[in-house]
Amino acid sequence: MTGTLYLIPVALGPAAPEWLHPPASQTLTHRLTHFVVENAKTARAEIKRMGHPAPVQTLSISELPKHAPDTALDALLAPAIAGHDIGLMSEAGCPAVADPGALLVRRAHELGIRVVPIVGPSSLLLSLMASGLNGQSFAFHGYLPVKDADRIIALRELEKESRKHQRTQIFIETPYRNLSMFNALTTVLAPDTRLCVAREVTTEGEWISTDTIARWRKREAPDLDRRPTVFLVLAEASRRT
Amino acid sequence: MTGTLYLIPVALGPAAPEWLHPPASQTLTHRLTHFVVENAKTARAEIKRMGHPAPVQTLSISELPKHAPDTALDALLAPAIAGHDIGLMSEAGCPAVADPGALLVRRAHELGIRVVPIVGPSSLLLSLMASGLNGQSFAFHGYLPVKDADRIIALRELEKESRKHQRTQIFIETPYRNLSMFNALTTVLAPDTRLCVAREVTTEGEWISTDTIARWRKREAPDLDRRPTVFLVLAEASRRT
Repeated sequence: MTGTLYLIPVALGPAAPEWLHPPASQTLTHRLTHFVVENAKTARAEIKRMGHPAPVQTLSISELPKHAPDTALDALLAPAIAGHDIGLMSEAGCPAVADPGALLVRRAHELGIRVVPIVGPSSLLLSLMASGLNGQSFAFHGYLPVKDADRIIALRELEKESRKHQRTQIFIETPYRNLSMFNALTTVLAPDTRLCVAREVTTEGEWISTDTIARWRKREAPDLDRRPTVFLVLAEASRRT
Repeated sequence: MTGTLYLIPVALGPAAPEWLHPPASQTLTHRLTHFVVENAKTARAEIKRMGHPAPVQTLSISELPKHAPDTALDALLAPAIAGHDIGLMSEAGCPAVADPGALLVRRAHELGIRVVPIVGPSSLLLSLMASGLNGQSFAFHGYLPVKDADRIIALRELEKESRKHQRTQIFIETPYRNLSMFNALTTVLAPDTRLCVAREVTTEGEWISTDTIARWRKREAPDLDRRPTVFLVLAEASRRT
């Protein structure tokens, strides 16, 4: 019988596990002997930390290749074809969402391997919940362009689309560029557009605040430097100018 | 000291709680005495089921109004101003994402009340993880138009945008219209567009499958009638025609 591909979220940073994982997620991990992971070294440490009963060197832990042809994915999924369950884990958060793994999952569907997603922390979802912005319509855009001029164009376009569809626009930035992104947002966006800054969600440094651009301009800039942050923007439908 | 607004996910349907909630989510719920909920009757049952130590009639359980002016939201948040923590719960899944609650959260930010999102089940996020479609760029659109002609236009537009941005398009349908939506999707979309059908995620009836439209057309139609389902679509970048 074909095994199952389980998608197992991991912590977003240093945090108490009792806030992050349903008990069955841990029980499941303990009985798996095959893993596909983003980074083998940190995955071994994570699997140990989760209290896996087997010596970690006896487990099959394979890394996801960066650009995977079907043959490489098939090799990673071979244990499932042979009847073993496989756990897919990324470095942080939920596999295959703003993280690698989607191509492996897609190939699993093509091969008829059952895919089961496990509940766990997602910085995007938790930030959206806590933002107070529109959760009925939203889009995630990954990283925006880095160059100033291109970033300004991208932000104006996202704001325009947000206003038209009342859509919450979600994006992330390389942590050392967070302050530069924050400054661009408060400069470029309209005063009545709402911005949520969600920093280090689920960890000790968690800090989430939503305000209008007009009010952000008067507040002290938040401490985001080199700290993982999700940015969320919602433009007012009827712009008051 | 001002209380905190906790956003507490609940089950998506009949399911074993050990797969859904981190232990701290239950511990937290047990110490709360103030709740704002989508439906008071089902929330009382849920809070009892979670093993809340206090008799449920001694708890303050208020319903979210459908269209809430700030004064109504302020009344709901008054306990937090008075120093009590508040739990926000919707009928199923994560509050404020494809569910009511965002306006209350937004008002909490305006009043300087700390907002803390708790990890738990989200049908949208779990479906996206398990779809194998693009998790680096995606958008949730809620419900599409019901009328045939309007739905066809909306689907064509979503497919076009998906192809252009390699964006996964996510939407839901009223469960008794799921089969009609499935038929529209397999009729309207291009043969090489990928469709994921994610039914009753996290519950006993969970069934998740991704395939190209061409192959869906040859498969037996899935049993989606009156069963909560998330639809996800990704169009190939270079359409082969």
